[in-house]
Amino acid sequence: MITNSELKYIKKLGRKKYRNLYSHFVVEGEKVFQDILNSKIPLVRCYSTKQINVQNNVTVTDNCMKRITFLKNPSSILGIFSTPKKKRTPLNKKVLVLDDVSDPGNLGSIIRLCDWFGFENIVCSKNTVDCYNPKVIQSSMGSISRINIFYEDLSSYLSKVSIPVYGTFLNGESFNRITFPKEFVLIFGNESNGISKSVSKFLKYKITIPKVSRSNVDSLNITSATAIIMNEISNQSFKS
Amino acid sequence: MITNSELKYIKKLGRKKYRNLYSHFVVEGEKVFQDILNSKIPLVRCYSTKQINVQNNVTVTDNCMKRITFLKNPSSILGIFSTPKKKRTPLNKKVLVLDDVSDPGNLGSIIRLCDWFGFENIVCSKNTVDCYNPKVIQSSMGSISRINIFYEDLSSYLSKVSIPVYGTFLNGESFNRITFPKEFVLIFGNESNGISKSVSKFLKYKITIPKVSRSNVDSLNITSATAIIMNEISNQSFKS
Repeated sequence: MITNSELKYIKKLGRKKYRNLYSHFVVEGEKVFQDILNSKIPLVRCYSTKQINVQNNVTVTDNCMKRITFLKNPSSILGIFSTPKKKRTPLNKKVLVLDDVSDPGNLGSIIRLCDWFGFENIVCSKNTVDCYNPKVIQSSMGSISRINIFYEDLSSYLSKVSIPVYGTFLNGESFNRITFPKEFVLIFGNESNGISKSVSKFLKYKITIPKVSRSNVDSLNITSATAIIMNEISNQSFKS
Repeated sequence: MITNSELKYIKKLGRKKYRNLYSHFVVEGEKVFQDILNSKIPLVRCYSTKQINVQNNVTVTDNCMKRITFLKNPSSILGIFSTPKKKRTPLNKKVLVLDDVSDPGNLGSIIRLCDWFGFENIVCSKNTVDCYNPKVIQSSMGSISRINIFYEDLSSYLSKVSIPVYGTFLNGESFNRITFPKEFVLIFGNESNGISKSVSKFLKYKITIPKVSRSNVDSLNITSATAIIMNEISNQSFKS
């Protein structure tokens, strides 16, 4: 069993304010839990409906899991981990920048894409959804433990950057006509409003994914766009 | 104002059972609403917090909109549309097949990708999330009005198909080594379990997106994978 104060504590971790205060975050699902357990991120405590051989584990009933979970369909395990210590925000290498991305599913999928395509660093604007939001963790499928994620004031960050800065727009140069250098910043904007004015003044190149069909569809979802552009960058680096 | 029975009716449309019974579905958000209004899909009624020049519109208060919406942040408009009449399921052309895709956000994004890349037809397994689910409509961003979506028993459907059938797996041939023909079926499976056994026996080719990094990440989100493969198919059709 768990106490009422533990239950309250876990529920608080659904909110960014408390995650920041306690430097803890929640991980659910056996695969994601195992992936993060295998990383260097320290486990604080975990609650499981099965007998498992993990330190700091509390065995709980299915009903108890239903009370603590953030999922519609609870898994057999819920772990509380310590948020990793902050590293120094990188000013070179390949950096993905997200300007106010708001949907947790999108951020999670983008983290997974970075992991797949070898982008080690994501710099997010302060208003981008928190990467320790339970839904982000869920859709990142454990990749969160392998990608460095920073929250910065983007104007201040980009003013320090001296590598080329690319940004995605609806009207830019076709992404597959561009030769990407080894080190660069690639910016994606908010799902509805795109890249903000204050950020776009730092851009060197505006890039776009040209529409193939004659349909009225005016844009792709940000996860789709990130996937297509990262795949192209990866193809180029193999050919070079 | 709206009556209690109208409120109940709208809420019922959140469930597939009632959408099927009444052949109506809900559309929210100004852009998506306008896109579907401009299509051939008939509007039954709409509720708006602004004065608008649309037939069958009822002006409602913000509070009333909060009661009828399916969104966390309601938009200014909610429309009820008639589900389009069923066409004949296509056995040739380019057909995307979804085998038990369960996440509404994924299905919506995939519909948007089909619209972008000129795939006109999606055939879904009976257990794939309903395309008239409010969350699917939302993330399809109006593309639902331009794509034909069918629900079929996949074994029965695929047994009638005589064009090549490709399916995505974690261990298949690299997708960019394959020359896609003009007409084919491309299958994506469930988010957790992939393509089911009963469906995989109809496959001619197993394809995969090779991982670039050395990370432990074992798969991409289905929207990302669909985006990357559709982009490749589109590139090939332009080169040919």
